Amino acid sequence: MSSIPKIVILGAGYGGVLTALRLQKELNYNEADVTLVNKHDYHYFTTHLHMPAAGTDNPENARVNISKLIDEFKIDFVKSTVVQIRPQDKKVILEDGTLSYDYLVIGLGGEPETFGIPGLAEHAMSIRSINSVRLIREHIEYQFARYKLEPHRTDYLTFVVGGAGFTGIEFIGELADRMPLLCKQYDVDPNLVKIYNVEAAPSALPGFDPELVEYGMDVLAKKGVTFRIGTAIKECTPSGVVVGDNEEIKSATVIWTGGIRGNRLIEEAGFETMRGRVKISDHLLAPDSDHVYIIGDNSLMFNPEGRPYPPTAQIAMQQGVVCAHNLVASIRNQPLKEFTFSNKGTVASLGKGEAIGVAFGKKYKGRVASWLKKAIDIRYLFIIGGIQLVLRKGKFL
Amino acid sequence: MSSIPKIVILGAGYGGVLTALRLQKELNYNEADVTLVNKHDYHYFTTHLHMPAAGTDNPENARVNISKLIDEFKIDFVKSTVVQIRPQDKKVILEDGTLSYDYLVIGLGGEPETFGIPGLAEHAMSIRSINSVRLIREHIEYQFARYKLEPHRTDYLTFVVGGAGFTGIEFIGELADRMPLLCKQYDVDPNLVKIYNVEAAPSALPGFDPELVEYGMDVLAKKGVTFRIGTAIKECTPSGVVVGDNEEIKSATVIWTGGIRGNRLIEEAGFETMRGRVKISDHLLAPDSDHVYIIGDNSLMFNPEGRPYPPTAQIAMQQGVVCAHNLVASIRNQPLKEFTFSNKGTVASLGKGEAIGVAFGKKYKGRVASWLKKAIDIRYLFIIGGIQLVLRKGKFL
Repeated sequence: MSSIPKIVILGAGYGGVLTALRLQKELNYNEADVTLVNKHDYHYFTTHLHMPAAGTDNPENARVNISKLIDEFKIDFVKSTVVQIRPQDKKVILEDGTLSYDYLVIGLGGEPETFGIPGLAEHAMSIRSINSVRLIREHIEYQFARYKLEPHRTDYLTFVVGGAGFTGIEFIGELADRMPLLCKQYDVDPNLVKIYNVEAAPSALPGFDPELVEYGMDVLAKKGVTFRIGTAIKECTPSGVVVGDNEEIKSATVIWTGGIRGNRLIEEAGFETMRGRVKISDHLLAPDSDHVYIIGDNSLMFNPEGRPYPPTAQIAMQQGVVCAHNLVASIRNQPLKEFTFSNKGTVASLGKGEAIGVAFGKKYKGRVASWLKKAIDIRYLFIIGGIQLVLRKGKFL
Repeated sequence: MSSIPKIVILGAGYGGVLTALRLQKELNYNEADVTLVNKHDYHYFTTHLHMPAAGTDNPENARVNISKLIDEFKIDFVKSTVVQIRPQDKKVILEDGTLSYDYLVIGLGGEPETFGIPGLAEHAMSIRSINSVRLIREHIEYQFARYKLEPHRTDYLTFVVGGAGFTGIEFIGELADRMPLLCKQYDVDPNLVKIYNVEAAPSALPGFDPELVEYGMDVLAKKGVTFRIGTAIKECTPSGVVVGDNEEIKSATVIWTGGIRGNRLIEEAGFETMRGRVKISDHLLAPDSDHVYIIGDNSLMFNPEGRPYPPTAQIAMQQGVVCAHNLVASIRNQPLKEFTFSNKGTVASLGKGEAIGVAFGKKYKGRVASWLKKAIDIRYLFIIGGIQLVLRKGKFL
């Protein structure tokens, strides 16, 4: 052990950034040595990725340089990819180096869950990073350009979104908004464009207020979306998807939003997982550990009714705050705090000027819900980067 | 024959548009019935396509609606694709109809000449229309997006331009200018990008002033272009090109600019052709015809030294003017005019602020040549659309 305890935070997503920011604030000078490790030198707003993916916003508005968020005099930043976590050795192997730790915070984020559907990993794209959404946006525009030279290929103008959860619905809203613009830009008849949303569950946005879900589906259907709810994707092929009763939807663009699972590095590290996620303690600690915290998409926590909390930005941020508190408490030999989730509400956007949401115990839809969504985004920018970040990145709002 | 002679103009390229504009001006009311046929409802500036292809300008700046150019009270416009020309029947078969004519002007433009190189037609793209350059631009951006998710695929960042003629050199200048911007946008190390220019002839820009060619290659080499002059492309494959001594250049993007040949419709119509082009009379008439004019890329004319004029916008425009004159003269039973090419000079751009050219018997390079190029573009906009068009489309200048 070094003279002062060494804290390593893996991942600068919602959980990792909040942990780092709170540590920066709460730790005294030389009380601990904090290192934040991230694959990219920027943090991105996962909840905003549906817009750059559809091309309705610039990807630059969905990320911020980590150097703009953290104080590099207080927290070291290492841009590298984590290759292996070795809890026994208290070490993390990076692509270009090794880090030792006394305390570890795993906030690495999840991976797309394909539920073993053949071809999905190979042929579908997913909305999970700046790089992946830039690919989706470019891929979509490329299909329009290709179609103009091969006008018999209507599959170039057919877009299949797998999954009608939060990401799927929000992405479809943007995609439907973008289509008329792309049609104009490429001289394409808008009637030729097809957007399918395929969801195996019996309803879109499972768990959401049914009245709002109905309203939302109505809004999207009017924008031209064809829903195939209660229909499973059987297979994804280079030429489209096979759904339900062996029906093929020919499409050059399949975007999978059907859920996420924990990061494979967690399993490989020897933690016991359920779909890659680790059931953590109320203090956010890994089982039987007093120094490894797991937060965000890789953590599994249950609500008072015994159902797992879905992996959201909201819970990851709240975990980050408690995680930082508990790290400081550990170092100071003070008692740890128990995490309790405080639901601030949920709003799903449906494209420009439309959204549905529940907040403060009330339902919202239409323009008001859409403002609420923007307020949530602004609040987040303010929390992590103050008014400067709101002014710089808030232009998309 | 109808009561008044019927003139059909096929193609609204440089030759067809100039013919139509001059006919509109010179014909008296009810002296002839003129129909312009074009695949698209817009005319595009072929000499400007290298910019939208590389993404350094918006494709909208390279086209103008035909309705903005011609007076539809004087000239009928039919948006359709020509399927067959039947000189014996004096008919043109369109994708959706048939047109009869007394006088025909064939200004259909050429096709890429692949010289029988295997795989070129299938795997290479070419700079020949608004649709094709939108594809190239989107394809290039897509490669950057793909690279970020498959960083071992350096072929995504390798760009091969086949042909160092006018189009090839001008495109490379723009492409080299665009690369640093794309690298910044996609967080790609600029050192990983490779641009190859492969040309079978012993020099770039054959026939151009050797001193200027050397200057131009120097400018482009400094921008990062690797020249492989005197090197033939043996084959184009899905994974790149095979050049010279069976060397493979792995590349996901091959753009072929190696020349154009006449339109296959011309051969199919029964005209005798050389590389798809018809040796026309000094009056611009097809062999043994007094009513079928062939201008632009499908026409073959020889200079006083007995060498064929290359197919350029400049010659097509001058042919259009004489063609219109001769049509009017025919109708009025006046003598036809002989075409003589008046070389106004040639300027090749090399990207932003750089060009090489010969005009008014003098050589120009650098910024002055670049201004000259802009002046030529402005002059053309003025000729076809007056000051209004200069102000509307001239913003790219």
